[in-house]
Amino acid sequence: MPDTTAPTDPVALTQALIRCNSVTPAEGGALVLLEKLLSGAGFACTRVDRGGVANLFARWGDKGHQRSFGFNGHTDVVPPGDEGAWTHGPFSGDLEDGVIWGRGATDMKSGVAAFAAAAVDFVRETPPEGAIMLAITGDEEGDAVDGTAALLDWMAAQGEGMSVCIVGEPTCPDRMGEMIKIGRRGSMNAHFTVTGVQGHSAYPHRAKNPLPAMARLMDRLASHELDRGTAHFDASTLAVVTIDTGNPATNVIPASCRSAVNIRFNDTHTGASLTGWLRQEADRVAEEFGVSVDMQVKISGEAFLTPPGPLSDLVSKAVAAETGVTPELSTTGGTSDARFIKNHCPVVEFGLVGHFMHQVDERVPAGQVQELKAIYTRILRDYFA
Amino acid sequence: MPDTTAPTDPVALTQALIRCNSVTPAEGGALVLLEKLLSGAGFACTRVDRGGVANLFARWGDKGHQRSFGFNGHTDVVPPGDEGAWTHGPFSGDLEDGVIWGRGATDMKSGVAAFAAAAVDFVRETPPEGAIMLAITGDEEGDAVDGTAALLDWMAAQGEGMSVCIVGEPTCPDRMGEMIKIGRRGSMNAHFTVTGVQGHSAYPHRAKNPLPAMARLMDRLASHELDRGTAHFDASTLAVVTIDTGNPATNVIPASCRSAVNIRFNDTHTGASLTGWLRQEADRVAEEFGVSVDMQVKISGEAFLTPPGPLSDLVSKAVAAETGVTPELSTTGGTSDARFIKNHCPVVEFGLVGHFMHQVDERVPAGQVQELKAIYTRILRDYFA
Ligand SMILES: [Zn+2]
Ligand SMILES: [Zn+2]
Repeated sequence: MPDTTAPTDPVALTQALIRCNSVTPAEGGALVLLEKLLSGAGFACTRVDRGGVANLFARWGDKGHQRSFGFNGHTDVVPPGDEGAWTHGPFSGDLEDGVIWGRGATDMKSGVAAFAAAAVDFVRETPPEGAIMLAITGDEEGDAVDGTAALLDWMAAQGEGMSVCIVGEPTCPDRMGEMIKIGRRGSMNAHFTVTGVQGHSAYPHRAKNPLPAMARLMDRLASHELDRGTAHFDASTLAVVTIDTGNPATNVIPASCRSAVNIRFNDTHTGASLTGWLRQEADRVAEEFGVSVDMQVKISGEAFLTPPGPLSDLVSKAVAAETGVTPELSTTGGTSDARFIKNHCPVVEFGLVGHFMHQVDERVPAGQVQELKAIYTRILRDYFA
Repeated sequence: MPDTTAPTDPVALTQALIRCNSVTPAEGGALVLLEKLLSGAGFACTRVDRGGVANLFARWGDKGHQRSFGFNGHTDVVPPGDEGAWTHGPFSGDLEDGVIWGRGATDMKSGVAAFAAAAVDFVRETPPEGAIMLAITGDEEGDAVDGTAALLDWMAAQGEGMSVCIVGEPTCPDRMGEMIKIGRRGSMNAHFTVTGVQGHSAYPHRAKNPLPAMARLMDRLASHELDRGTAHFDASTLAVVTIDTGNPATNVIPASCRSAVNIRFNDTHTGASLTGWLRQEADRVAEEFGVSVDMQVKISGEAFLTPPGPLSDLVSKAVAAETGVTPELSTTGGTSDARFIKNHCPVVEFGLVGHFMHQVDERVPAGQVQELKAIYTRILRDYFA
């Protein structure tokens, strides 16, 4: 008979998960492994697969309970790149001198392992008055269309609601415990095509050069101050990322030119408000230069903020108690699946140090994974106290 | 015995020259044919080949005579392109319904044929007190390094000087006789590379984006008024011809960006003065944006002008007498080899209608070639009168 009173080891679980080759969108056995662990601890598990993506929903406790603690994370990983460049194989999960090696060691099989281990032990030792839910996706690193969004759609249809949610992505820049993310800037891309009339460089009045119009438009967009930041957000930024023409002939004025800009925006803006501004600037140069300006916009995620309050207090206190570090409440960085969850319940992100993410030789100190489990355990204890 | 009193037919000579496949830099038999004709009429001929390019110098009359009338032209042609698209073969020289077909029919085997025929008949019928020179190159359509420039170098070394010179390029936009070129705008290209520091779009303050600097620079250059034209010149123009980055990733701020501009400038400027202005604008954005801006300049030709005077009067009167049209004195169009000759003697350009130059189905009315011979003959007669 197994010793059911021994604590679940998040290090061994991280190693086991790394050994599942789950490069997006492959499930690789990772969710199967988690489902087995969670089912064994009394979690009701459901695979919520959609569009070729595997996702796992697990709940301990009653459905529809008003105290439902949620956790979101992903088991998919980015490709290992040149496997020969790795010191330990990217799917080895080797543990050597207190360090776990492999793809997903920080982003974020360790985070999933730490929370699963905490939850399994917690419900066994001190069964709470309420519910604990895990929504684990196999598509966070891909286009994320059928990942966490699919889980949330399914949960809404099933009446599975979370009262609060923690996303377990790595959030600490350098030291364990130093940063909680309470929001994220939004992100969007706009692709412009300026079209004029081709001609000979010697007779520019017979042509309609799209390039001066493009230059003016990009200069205006890049030099415009979107805002100066807010209480919780840095200033929004716009980066012109490419301008391309592909005209090899200096005696020819080209017919068209393309460009792209990326905008990271705070809660002063929405994707729609920025699209309106971009369209207005595009129309302005179109009129000034007598060219046409086509614009295609893709909004990757809106800005969101869970203002400092009960949830961030809960996480902050647990982090400080376990690490001695008082975490900063931040909104920096790129997008995460919290952008989907914020439409359902208060959400913050907390995980370990994000070193080596997406790099060769991704690895994590085993002690940090143990520390993360302890923090998650304390969060659960305090939440249900 | 051949009938030495029969006039030389410029149409048959044009046809014969078209049948020589002299795509730059091939001689194709064209200069050999001309040398035979001119030698037979008493011209002293010298092949002035340099750097793989064939050139022909021919003089009738005494070397160093103070009345030396010069003619410059080229027998090389641009490639025919898709030969199957031609109604008559590009090297057929077919004469059908009074039209001569083939590559070089307008640019400018017809011009060379018309002058050679005029000169040969003129020296036989009314031997002038003075010299007539032809400087015919096989590299006008190429990079022109070893073409007319080589002929002029050799002539200077030999003490062969022209008092005045006509370049026989097509100069008339639509109607025979309507335009003489008394100058040409200069032309130069500048290639810019703006280099910053690559980075992530989410953290633009850690990068140094070269694109806004490039956009500002191109906007400034394109919107600057170089001048408003002069008595004989249109306003100078600057065309931004390409801006290229080649960055496919919207989450990446690129390290560098390239662009090119083409400037067509009148005698208000020189290549050096414009280079100075461009360097100043480049330095200005480099400082404003904290990027580096590399600039490579290539000056294809300086602006030049032969102010209206005895030479343009001579040509104008001959044109008006033969065609009934009073020609405009113009400086429009791209560069020509007159840019080299202007350093040696007064030079103007006059030739036939420039339709179909460099196009498929290049062709010329035979009557226009006869008319051009008559004009060149009258110019020689009036010059030596
Ligand atoms: Zn992640
Ligand atoms: Zn030509």
